Amino acid sequence: MSTKPSPLTLVPSLRVFRGRAFVFGPGKAALLEHIGRTGSISEAAKAMEMSYMKAWKLVKSMERGFAEPLVHKTRGGYARGGATISPTGRKVLALYRTMESASQAAIRRSTPRFTRLLK
Amino acid sequence: MSTKPSPLTLVPSLRVFRGRAFVFGPGKAALLEHIGRTGSISEAAKAMEMSYMKAWKLVKSMERGFAEPLVHKTRGGYARGGATISPTGRKVLALYRTMESASQAAIRRSTPRFTRLLK
Repeated sequence: MSTKPSPLTLVPSLRVFRGRAFVFGPGKAALLEHIGRTGSISEAAKAMEMSYMKAWKLVKSMERGFAEPLVHKTRGGYARGGATISPTGRKVLALYRTMESASQAAIRRSTPRFTRLLK
Repeated sequence: MSTKPSPLTLVPSLRVFRGRAFVFGPGKAALLEHIGRTGSISEAAKAMEMSYMKAWKLVKSMERGFAEPLVHKTRGGYARGGATISPTGRKVLALYRTMESASQAAIRRSTPRFTRLLK
């Protein structure tokens, strides 16, 4: 009864759609970040506990959706392992994180009211 | 080239956590709404293409997390089929939808920038 309750966190998970087609969301954002950090799709896939094939498909779907590739091949192409985020990829990622922050700031003021409804 | 692109929609999917424990999110919100509309957990489960057992577990987990039940039994209990949203349930749902709207309003101004990065 007297234990201090854990703080409430509100996590906005943004998904961008064009019409009905899913374009970008938390998984693709995390994958881009991991590719930027590791310089490799396969290392990024490992970090996300995802198959290389799945990561590769996500990269391919990002190529289809955006005006310019978000990921660039390095050292002989994806299959050889090297990849890096393109300038457009950095823009997309930064904009996505900005939107997440804006969303979080907007809902933060509701946190106390939600907390009062909890046990 | 000349086809008009579909409009971009940004969908914030809010998940509420207490510490590491998931408390409330899009699935529970939708379930509450369906229970309110149909007056029945099993009808709500059908509308969501979810098993009765899964819907019932979600209702039970909402009972554990909140100070008061979000769903009330009617006509002899959950098993006999009847259920309705409690006043607290309505409060939680309204607050959740308010937070969603606030989040959407906050990210709307980024939509044109995101659109320009797309194909």
